[in-house]
Amino acid sequence: MKYVIIGGVAGGMSAATRLRRLNEEAEIIVLERGPYVSFANCGLPYFIGGVIKERSKLLVQTAEKLYQRFRLDVRTKSEVTRIDREQKKVLIDHNGKSYEETYDVLILSTGARPMRPPIEGIDQADHLFTLRDVPDAEHIVQYLQQHKVDHAVIIGAGFIGIEMAENLAEHGLKVTIVEREHQVLPPLDPEMAIVVEAELKKHGIEVLKGKTVTGFDENGAILVLDDGMRKKTDLTLLSVGVVPESSLAEQAGLALGIRRSISVNDHLQTSDSNIYAIGDAIEVAQTVGGRPAVIPLASPANRQGRMVADILSGMKRSYKGTLGTSIVKAFDLSAAVTGLSEKLLQRFNIPYEALHTSPPDHASYYPGSAQMTLKLLFDPESGKVLGAQAVGKKGVDKTIDVLATAIHGQMTVNDLTELELAYAPPFNSAKAPVNLIGYASENLLDGNVQNVQWNEVDQLVQQGEMLIDVRTEQEYGNGTIQGAVNIPLDDLRERLSEIPKNRDLIVTCQVGLRGYLAARILAQNGYSVKNLDGGYKLYSSVFPEIVK
Amino acid sequence: MKYVIIGGVAGGMSAATRLRRLNEEAEIIVLERGPYVSFANCGLPYFIGGVIKERSKLLVQTAEKLYQRFRLDVRTKSEVTRIDREQKKVLIDHNGKSYEETYDVLILSTGARPMRPPIEGIDQADHLFTLRDVPDAEHIVQYLQQHKVDHAVIIGAGFIGIEMAENLAEHGLKVTIVEREHQVLPPLDPEMAIVVEAELKKHGIEVLKGKTVTGFDENGAILVLDDGMRKKTDLTLLSVGVVPESSLAEQAGLALGIRRSISVNDHLQTSDSNIYAIGDAIEVAQTVGGRPAVIPLASPANRQGRMVADILSGMKRSYKGTLGTSIVKAFDLSAAVTGLSEKLLQRFNIPYEALHTSPPDHASYYPGSAQMTLKLLFDPESGKVLGAQAVGKKGVDKTIDVLATAIHGQMTVNDLTELELAYAPPFNSAKAPVNLIGYASENLLDGNVQNVQWNEVDQLVQQGEMLIDVRTEQEYGNGTIQGAVNIPLDDLRERLSEIPKNRDLIVTCQVGLRGYLAARILAQNGYSVKNLDGGYKLYSSVFPEIVK
Ligand SMILES: Cc1cc2nc3c(=O)[nH]c(=O)nc-3n(C[C@H](O)[C@H](O)[C@H](O)COP(=O)(O)OP(=O)(O)OC[C@H]3O[C@@H](n4cnc5c(N)ncnc54)[C@H](O)[C@@H]3O)c2cc1C
Ligand SMILES: Cc1cc2nc3c(=O)[nH]c(=O)nc-3n(C[C@H](O)[C@H](O)[C@H](O)COP(=O)(O)OP(=O)(O)OC[C@H]3O[C@@H](n4cnc5c(N)ncnc54)[C@H](O)[C@@H]3O)c2cc1C
Ligand SMILES: CC(C)(COP(=O)(O)OP(=O)(O)OC[C@H]1O[C@@H](n2cnc3c(N)ncnc32)[C@H](O)[C@@H]1OP(=O)(O)O)[C@@H](O)C(=O)NCCC(=O)NCCS
Ligand SMILES: CC(C)(COP(=O)(O)OP(=O)(O)OC[C@H]1O[C@@H](n2cnc3c(N)ncnc32)[C@H](O)[C@@H]1OP(=O)(O)O)[C@@H](O)C(=O)NCCC(=O)NCCS
Repeated sequence: MKYVIIGGVAGGMSAATRLRRLNEEAEIIVLERGPYVSFANCGLPYFIGGVIKERSKLLVQTAEKLYQRFRLDVRTKSEVTRIDREQKKVLIDHNGKSYEETYDVLILSTGARPMRPPIEGIDQADHLFTLRDVPDAEHIVQYLQQHKVDHAVIIGAGFIGIEMAENLAEHGLKVTIVEREHQVLPPLDPEMAIVVEAELKKHGIEVLKGKTVTGFDENGAILVLDDGMRKKTDLTLLSVGVVPESSLAEQAGLALGIRRSISVNDHLQTSDSNIYAIGDAIEVAQTVGGRPAVIPLASPANRQGRMVADILSGMKRSYKGTLGTSIVKAFDLSAAVTGLSEKLLQRFNIPYEALHTSPPDHASYYPGSAQMTLKLLFDPESGKVLGAQAVGKKGVDKTIDVLATAIHGQMTVNDLTELELAYAPPFNSAKAPVNLIGYASENLLDGNVQNVQWNEVDQLVQQGEMLIDVRTEQEYGNGTIQGAVNIPLDDLRERLSEIPKNRDLIVTCQVGLRGYLAARILAQNGYSVKNLDGGYKLYSSVFPEIVK
Repeated sequence: MKYVIIGGVAGGMSAATRLRRLNEEAEIIVLERGPYVSFANCGLPYFIGGVIKERSKLLVQTAEKLYQRFRLDVRTKSEVTRIDREQKKVLIDHNGKSYEETYDVLILSTGARPMRPPIEGIDQADHLFTLRDVPDAEHIVQYLQQHKVDHAVIIGAGFIGIEMAENLAEHGLKVTIVEREHQVLPPLDPEMAIVVEAELKKHGIEVLKGKTVTGFDENGAILVLDDGMRKKTDLTLLSVGVVPESSLAEQAGLALGIRRSISVNDHLQTSDSNIYAIGDAIEVAQTVGGRPAVIPLASPANRQGRMVADILSGMKRSYKGTLGTSIVKAFDLSAAVTGLSEKLLQRFNIPYEALHTSPPDHASYYPGSAQMTLKLLFDPESGKVLGAQAVGKKGVDKTIDVLATAIHGQMTVNDLTELELAYAPPFNSAKAPVNLIGYASENLLDGNVQNVQWNEVDQLVQQGEMLIDVRTEQEYGNGTIQGAVNIPLDDLRERLSEIPKNRDLIVTCQVGLRGYLAARILAQNGYSVKNLDGGYKLYSSVFPEIVK
């Protein structure tokens, strides 16, 4: 059997090595157009920032070592320029010479390429970079070494944009991020992303939201924004997302999916039964909701690489979908997401409940604990977990990994209350963040409490609902939501007579816990009451300007 | 409705507060014999060690605050001395005076007490301490302040023993641990516990394994061990486990379970339908395998506390069992376990496969990664995960929490390969530790490889199997397993002729990965071969003295 694999990095090389492990006899050829294979794209921002000091660390394997260990025929600087499906062969360009190679089975792991919108002047722009591979990173490093670079502009505040902002800032540059959406980190919901934005600003990064770059002026030395602003830049990184690298597949007439990704069935097989495809280039089904998506992440690419080798070796496997679990470090914070966001649930018209909590990562009586902001999205009927997001200094990765595992297992919020996680004071609380958000969600599900969201409360107050801040007088004095009256929780039972029975009530506290306790007291005393989810902490982080 | 709760800490107080949230009208009385309620037992070792500086931090709530917020009638220094089931009342001793209180429903959350074996001289022993509550901790702190204490002996190397060893050592004491079993941390399997033992020794702690204290001599100043050794001690901590605090229940004629724990059904109801019991005092079913057990941990106690309140309030809940997830910090290491250990699987005659890996907690090309030792136990037929253990500097809590979640979801090793965990270089690898151990386990399940364990290899070699170390010449030169010949993996295909076809082979490498690759090559070349699971690293950590 002769396997030809196009693309020699995450998906492609994982498929190649696994194919060899399953089959000593097969002929396995890996064709990679770049100079390197098996490199750590994900490390590139940290290589540029000097956190990863040696380039060699990024090169997980070389063609020689892959031959020695796996008898893989790995050919770098070998670009496939055409697929001939009839003849089952590919045309390869190597150093300007082209030749053919036949295949029994072809695997496409061609990845994705940075999006390059047709902005005016883009083709004349100097010091404009994108970042996908080692040569891209080397170009940026060289440019930084050889030029006086004071100010960098990053277009796009996605994961790579934020990693690059941090790494360039740590390098001493003044960094501006321009983002078209009204928030950084578009995979997150806005009230979560704003915590990351604050962290970026705290570290001196200028964040311009809701703005598009409409032109590159003076050979790229000036960026023109849609609001007329002109921004000087010594180095510009375009990180506005990636597009599936599907040109070969398209030219060969393979069926394409959304955003010109390569269509595959659950055996990772394209519309040509001899051609398989994996990684950033393909369309996948979202684990939650099953909708088609393009999810360019390393963990799915690696998983698909191994799985395609299994399938080709006759093992019973099928690809069940991609969850989209991802994480990014932003200075001292980390921000992570799994499953669907509230934005996507709304777009897909999927019913949901949202809930925010602010648990410490570990028992607060043990030194060094840090509060995170945790958001859970779940089905209001079944309680099934649909998605989660977390932002904080510690414990974010753990919390999201547990929730990603829960979603994989189709668990409900009731399951979250029953998870038994490792507890000792340095590591967790006896009621882990995941348990607690399970409890609070269960209360919504069971109708023990009704919530109101950070973006609903103002309107309800305007409509005449009464807002009661149940924190202490001192906390109230330090800042509250406009229109709130103060009745501290511990006085509530004695001061019920101050609260009119005929008004709908909203209670609020710092993070939602005391509000919940107040809501329970009020509801059982005959009031119609809702709790402000996430409390003053969440509200004031989104609307810092309008709290009194 | 009048609820009386005996025991005002983890289980009892969680039940009390939840009862109030669900029911403003109920009368709720909490009876606690100690001077404090709602305290953090789990923080006590760190309070003694000075890591937690203020005692107040341990007191999560007070009786006054619990009244203010929850209208709980919390009575400290109030010991229940008798339950009268007929009359539905309890007899309470408060400062030497006794009185009665009736109940509609009684909840027992009486906890457990440190085991105190009838060792000769124990009742005459001075400076002998146990640690369960705040007064216990205060006694130890006082003793340390008022006496010259150079040498402490800790009897029992369980979680509390190890936490206390660390905290006393950090305090400047010379610490000896005496443990009856032939390993520290009996909940772990020995080859995992040995890593913790090495860490203790590295920090100057003397570890005496396989030894029992048979007497306290000279009023406790000398400990006599079963091998005749006499050990001087200035302070002795007895931490040899706990026994359920079930004397009240027993005296009231309630049905008891194993180790005199209180029997409950899956509604946490005792044999008296008006009496419920929760926490350390009860018998639970193990989540894996369903056998009865006593599992004294805070997370289950809290969970049961909330659940009993739900059940009493008419909600549909049932207690499904306890997993036994636990973790301990030992200086720079953490060690954690979930589900059943190999020892327990053997004892219960449950078929299993075991597998050990040594993944880095995050991508090793990003600074600061640390290798952990990870062990997975799974069903050899279905692949269902039965248990896991991890020891390492970083990522142990996360890895075990993901696996605990997987066990809760009845997941198999195939599921582990599909988990999509948050990956960016500072946090994880594209193939997370949990994915990788899933891969390796799947290979066993699918028959792609056979393994041999660290405690089987010597005998097989003696019986004539050929042991091949496939690491590099240099690694081999630095130490290998007795009897191993060296054929580096990357030379294996060329040197097959050196390997006799008629001998059974065992391959070994550093951690098991290269051995697996070698095993695949050899098997496909017609050899009968097994891979040494965990490799030289695991083997040499258990048998440091017999590697050449
Ligand atoms: C800067 C950066 C940071 C990232 N950080 C993270 C992260 O933290 N976490 C995460 O999960 N993911 C991250 N990713 C994404 C991750 O790297 C990708 O999801 C993953 O590499 C996809 O694997 P793949 O095999 O599909 O494509 P790639 O790894 O991109 O490999 C595709 C290869 O195919 C080659 N190729 C394409 N066309 C041809 C052709 N015609 N002929 C020959 N060769 C061809 C390309 O040269 C390329 O080397 C990051 C990516 C980048 C660029
Ligand atoms: C030093 C130490 C460290 C620990 N570390 C951890 C850890 O890291 N992780 C973990 O999961 N668990 C840990 N634990 C265990 C954890 O504290 C217990 O599992 C948990 O407290 C059990 O809750 P409970 O309500 O069953 O019992 P407890 O919390 O012990 O409460 C029982 C209470 O009942 C009272 N009582 C008993 N009988 C009577 C009576 N007749 N009348 C009135 N009152 C009575 C007792 O005085 C006691 O205060 C630790 C325990 C100790 C002692
Ligand atoms: C380097 C690369 C070729 C390695 O691929 P790989 O060989 O599949 O992966 P690993 O080296 O982690 O080895 C995994 C294999 O070893 C096995 N294994 C790992 N540890 C083991 C152990 N202790 N004992 C036994 N087997 C073990 C696994 O089961 C798996 O084998 P399987 O797939 O046949 O089941 C590929 O990952 C790559 O190119 N990576 C860099 C590119 C990249 O991922 N970029 C994006 C992220 S930055
Ligand atoms: C202090 C103690 C009384 C608190 O018990 P508790 O009130 O049940 O617990 P918490 O304060 O964490 O509050 C949890 C409640 O708040 C709710 N909640 C938490 N955060 C919330 C938020 N942001 N929004 C809304 N509700 C929230 C939860 O849903 C839960 O309510 P529920 O059980 O009615 O669903 C009890 O835990 C205790 O005594 N602890 C110390 C003893 C101990 O545990 N020792 C062993 C370990 S060291």
